[in-house]
Amino acid sequence: MTKNTKVNAAILIIGNEILSGRTLDTNTSSIALWLNSIGVKVNEVRVIPDIEDTIIDTVNFLRKANDYLFTTGGIGPTHDDITAQSISKAFGLEYELHKEAFKILEAYYKTGEFNEGRQKMVWMPKNAYLILNPTSGAPGFNVENVFCLPGVPSILKSMLGGLQNKIVGGKPILSHTISLRTVESEIAKSLTSVQNNNKDLEIGSYPFFQAGKLGVSIVIRSDDQSKIDNCIKEILIFIREKKIEVVDR
Amino acid sequence: MTKNTKVNAAILIIGNEILSGRTLDTNTSSIALWLNSIGVKVNEVRVIPDIEDTIIDTVNFLRKANDYLFTTGGIGPTHDDITAQSISKAFGLEYELHKEAFKILEAYYKTGEFNEGRQKMVWMPKNAYLILNPTSGAPGFNVENVFCLPGVPSILKSMLGGLQNKIVGGKPILSHTISLRTVESEIAKSLTSVQNNNKDLEIGSYPFFQAGKLGVSIVIRSDDQSKIDNCIKEILIFIREKKIEVVDR
Repeated sequence: MTKNTKVNAAILIIGNEILSGRTLDTNTSSIALWLNSIGVKVNEVRVIPDIEDTIIDTVNFLRKANDYLFTTGGIGPTHDDITAQSISKAFGLEYELHKEAFKILEAYYKTGEFNEGRQKMVWMPKNAYLILNPTSGAPGFNVENVFCLPGVPSILKSMLGGLQNKIVGGKPILSHTISLRTVESEIAKSLTSVQNNNKDLEIGSYPFFQAGKLGVSIVIRSDDQSKIDNCIKEILIFIREKKIEVVDR
Repeated sequence: MTKNTKVNAAILIIGNEILSGRTLDTNTSSIALWLNSIGVKVNEVRVIPDIEDTIIDTVNFLRKANDYLFTTGGIGPTHDDITAQSISKAFGLEYELHKEAFKILEAYYKTGEFNEGRQKMVWMPKNAYLILNPTSGAPGFNVENVFCLPGVPSILKSMLGGLQNKIVGGKPILSHTISLRTVESEIAKSLTSVQNNNKDLEIGSYPFFQAGKLGVSIVIRSDDQSKIDNCIKEILIFIREKKIEVVDR
């Protein structure tokens, strides 16, 4: 994979607590922002329940359809944490005690605290690579192009940096936002023509409410800064013509 | 569909801004909490980009695999809003001006403000049912078991109540949370045995950090309150034996 190839990924959020609405998923945003910064575009996100067959089928589909797959959740010590055994089955690998992970947690916990519950966290697919956890000890793991991370957002975030060398991205995906004091319908036609002039840029339009006032953010995304700059110029032309206030750019 | 049938739904979040990490999706949680309250369980969530073929294929898969499908995003006035035309294609229906929606927006806007951009929002699949929007006028729409809602969270939330009569749910899904001053590994074994005694309940265990202290929330979900009550009793027994502090229940 060269630096110019488009590289893509899927994110798989495993956990009933997201599907029930009890917990807001913030991991998608954390992973996506980080992936964009190293030139990987997220093609798809799925959220699925803690059901073994569903995990196996979804992992096997997404890992083949994308360059990388990141899973979150289900690698803790309790009965509802079934990601590691499901990933083992997805790859047809033994689910077994990982000696290196065992050593890490044995050293991490005080004498007597590395109990049966915690020992469950070192069971993984055979020969998995560890993803180190600087926050709470228990590592994630990586098999081929699948990277399994925990569900707790602060722990997950602390583990992403350590993955950088394992992911080969393309050019970083750059974005520029222009925030306007207007409504979408005022700029819709002009923005369509800018998009038509710049077909290989991703141009999005997002209404916002801030301090009681309506506005619209235009977001331009590409891996080519000069194309973004040209697009900004085109947008600023129609904004001036329409005398629209620029809130931020 | 009787009141005792298990009823399920999928949620499809359409929008590059979620996949890029720029915007945190809160709509999944809003829709899921509301669906649970009317007895509909969310089986799966997918987030996909603003690409017509992807929307068509995903909608056609999810609407057949679930009792209901809720989509969010892509029904505004700009070029990146392609949900209505994609849904039309998914169902093989004409994409056309919806007369009732036109009248609603004509009455909503001041004279001269119902411009070309805004008129795009009344183009929908032929004979779609409208989902009224008490916040900003432009309605969502419904074709068969598919309900299309906007992406702006406050607007979406205000439209859910009006859908209640269109959704036939099962028994409301009840949940009870017990929050403990402990760590998951301390209760993992006991909780596994409670889950084994209560196989038809969904029991989840979720670590939390609050005011600098670690804790675990146990969440029990079922449509049968008496089963939840029995499960709580079993959990309280091992909690007392282990002398674990109950933070909240």
